[in-house]
Amino acid sequence: MNYGIVTRVLGSLLIVEAVLMLPSYLIAVSNQGPDRMPFLITILLTAIIGGLMTRRKTVQSSIGAKEGLAIVALGWVFASIMGALPLHLTGVTNNYIDAFFEIVSGFTTTGATILKEIERLPQGILFWRSFTHWIGGMGILVFTLALMPALGIGGFQIFKAESPGPMAGKIAPRLRDTAKILYITYVTITLAEVILLSIGGMGVYESFIHTFGTVGTGGFSNRNGSIGDFDSTYIHMVIGFFMVASGVNFSLYYSFFRGKSTELFKDEEFRLYIKIIVIATLAIAIDLWMVSYHNVGYSLRDSFFQVASIITTTGYSTADFDLWPTFSKGILLILMFVGASAGSTGGGMKVIRILVMMKLVKREVGKLYHPRAVIPVKINNKVISNETVARINSFLALYLLLFLFSTLLVSFEQVDLITAASAVAATLGNIGPGLELVGPEQNYAFFSWPIKLWLSFLMLLGRLELFTIIALIAPKNWRIDV
Amino acid sequence: MNYGIVTRVLGSLLIVEAVLMLPSYLIAVSNQGPDRMPFLITILLTAIIGGLMTRRKTVQSSIGAKEGLAIVALGWVFASIMGALPLHLTGVTNNYIDAFFEIVSGFTTTGATILKEIERLPQGILFWRSFTHWIGGMGILVFTLALMPALGIGGFQIFKAESPGPMAGKIAPRLRDTAKILYITYVTITLAEVILLSIGGMGVYESFIHTFGTVGTGGFSNRNGSIGDFDSTYIHMVIGFFMVASGVNFSLYYSFFRGKSTELFKDEEFRLYIKIIVIATLAIAIDLWMVSYHNVGYSLRDSFFQVASIITTTGYSTADFDLWPTFSKGILLILMFVGASAGSTGGGMKVIRILVMMKLVKREVGKLYHPRAVIPVKINNKVISNETVARINSFLALYLLLFLFSTLLVSFEQVDLITAASAVAATLGNIGPGLELVGPEQNYAFFSWPIKLWLSFLMLLGRLELFTIIALIAPKNWRIDV
Repeated sequence: MNYGIVTRVLGSLLIVEAVLMLPSYLIAVSNQGPDRMPFLITILLTAIIGGLMTRRKTVQSSIGAKEGLAIVALGWVFASIMGALPLHLTGVTNNYIDAFFEIVSGFTTTGATILKEIERLPQGILFWRSFTHWIGGMGILVFTLALMPALGIGGFQIFKAESPGPMAGKIAPRLRDTAKILYITYVTITLAEVILLSIGGMGVYESFIHTFGTVGTGGFSNRNGSIGDFDSTYIHMVIGFFMVASGVNFSLYYSFFRGKSTELFKDEEFRLYIKIIVIATLAIAIDLWMVSYHNVGYSLRDSFFQVASIITTTGYSTADFDLWPTFSKGILLILMFVGASAGSTGGGMKVIRILVMMKLVKREVGKLYHPRAVIPVKINNKVISNETVARINSFLALYLLLFLFSTLLVSFEQVDLITAASAVAATLGNIGPGLELVGPEQNYAFFSWPIKLWLSFLMLLGRLELFTIIALIAPKNWRIDV
Repeated sequence: MNYGIVTRVLGSLLIVEAVLMLPSYLIAVSNQGPDRMPFLITILLTAIIGGLMTRRKTVQSSIGAKEGLAIVALGWVFASIMGALPLHLTGVTNNYIDAFFEIVSGFTTTGATILKEIERLPQGILFWRSFTHWIGGMGILVFTLALMPALGIGGFQIFKAESPGPMAGKIAPRLRDTAKILYITYVTITLAEVILLSIGGMGVYESFIHTFGTVGTGGFSNRNGSIGDFDSTYIHMVIGFFMVASGVNFSLYYSFFRGKSTELFKDEEFRLYIKIIVIATLAIAIDLWMVSYHNVGYSLRDSFFQVASIITTTGYSTADFDLWPTFSKGILLILMFVGASAGSTGGGMKVIRILVMMKLVKREVGKLYHPRAVIPVKINNKVISNETVARINSFLALYLLLFLFSTLLVSFEQVDLITAASAVAATLGNIGPGLELVGPEQNYAFFSWPIKLWLSFLMLLGRLELFTIIALIAPKNWRIDV
């Protein structure tokens, strides 16, 4: 392991984080809030530590597979450790672990909260909390890569480890350009939503807060009642639309804006993603309409919003879906696992992995009739290598294993199985709210601190798609006996 | 498709079934029960239909992949349709679908029941119900193969489709000998348990009933309170031991009795199976001891019995585990999916598949450090082919897909999610009791008839390991586009 380069990149990351805290500090200053000093202290501390780390000398500066994994895993942990300081120093959380949980939930775009009475909190803190969604959505290291040309060498290892999905691909030949294109798209979408929300009557500050929560598929709000507080179908629909849009592979937008719109509409993952949203929305709407709402319009509106929110793993709510009929809750629970598209800001298992598995199953049935046939699995007319298939299978198996093991762990808190299972699904999938005791009107404050730490760990695992973190903590012999 | 040979084999199967109903008929006669005529009518009808079917002429008698699948899938359905008749004709069920559910539950060794007040039912009926466990455990077609040498040609396709596990292997060069060896082992274990239970004070009739339920890993009892009715640690331990023994790959016993005991103890699936039982037993015992029982001995006894019962998918109970703490219930729910070993009479996903998946995950972690390494997955020092790995992956994916889809379907009955999910897990995994409304002290009678039919379908899917049944009903284009 080249410790020198790892330290230097992590240092750059901290400097970037310090700069990214400035807007929150300015908001705190302009409001004369109690969070001014905490932000100032954190920014200085983060910048100084970062500065010292970047001075570390290295013989060579290439980043290999090992270094890439270490940089991404440690980078996210370091950013969260420093990012939690303002919350702790302002005293909005009871202890540092609560602050850590909240900011990990922010960076990983989960949106699970331990804060109550959010509306009373300082505006700088609320802005920072939501801004972490925006930073984490596209990836804090991808951002660092876009800014620092020096990291270009071997930076692909970092990009691969941070980008969601089984097959990270560069859009442009140079990685720095890929990162830039992604961030330009991201900023464009962000500004579009801010403008549309402001037009709908939401204040600029709140428009930014909810846009960060939407495009990062995070779900933090500055309102106790989440989006349900805004009694406007227009606002529900704008946020619903941008949630769906943020769950699409961003590289497809690049093709789309360059005039290759067929690439978007022919993309198999995109098609399945839209199909799932349409079918789930209709199924839940019919269930709501027949069992509880007895009104087609409201059923469709709330159903669409919640389906969009859960499949993209955002976690906003306009209704307490924990009170919905079992069938509707069951669909939402399944969508928690499905997740959004690869290369989007959303979490979960990702639609592409489900698609590959479905094709594998179909192939196996075909093989029953023609046992000796060799049938490749194709996505968008490209053959998926056996290696990729094996990686996807392992991912899904590990995801389920972690889900089951963690559910058992959480059930030690003497909560019911649905609470335990949905708390794990909602953190591992970076969604936010679950069902029962962690439902949309509840929060995660009541868990003991070891469980809060474990759930924070699950959020990081989910955001970095398991293997990056697992590789760092796996027993040594797993590496040697290859 | 060679319809001639399919019809002939199915005819032989029905004749075998008619013969296998004779003991139940004799018990009905000796008790002068109301079930005498129903058995006589069913036996004659089944024998006549079977006889007519065997007279069908065929040009050639080879059984290919297609014919093997059709014979096994249809064979199990036909055997259940005829086997349900005595229950319906005696009037112990309200309608024919209930009778069908009960006998499918018997043949598939599930043990889920729609009958209440079991102790009042005629003894012939109770014997037949339990005997179907014994027949279904090792496979009714394997039995037919052992008896009918003419089916030897291509019979391996039948054997493969009926034997549980991803890698069916012959013990002896000739298939007929393999079937015979399996059945001799099965009969030996059966007699051993009957003798041990009789010594423990259980009557001979009840010893047979519970032995059928144990060695077939079925779970039907003639008592309302299942094994909990017998207040004898000796009986609990004997049944517990034989449940565990029946969840072991039977071909390992053959090696063991031929003096190759190391093969048993070195078998990776056997080792993991025993490890899971030990760890789960200890974990639940500690939970029970601390939270509810406050007695080490009872905690261990009930924990071991229930773990053995659930992992082998038997479904007997000595305590109402639905009242146990969440952690213990969570472990049992996971064991429902794990299941027993391949080549045993147990259901579920099978330990070997979990083992292969764990090795795949481990390999993937290793590959993070050595991206270009080619690392084969080995079980018992033998490389598992990519084809087998793909088949296992597809199996697990399809299993989960079916589980999720069926849970949604069952949730239409307006039951809670735990009831819906555990009812599906318990039927698809051939276990029997689930949690909440289908817990060990409850039963399946309250479901509507379409759901009962769907659950019967799941039991058959689970017993025949999905693909055999799926192949018959899959859309035609799945077969053509290979």
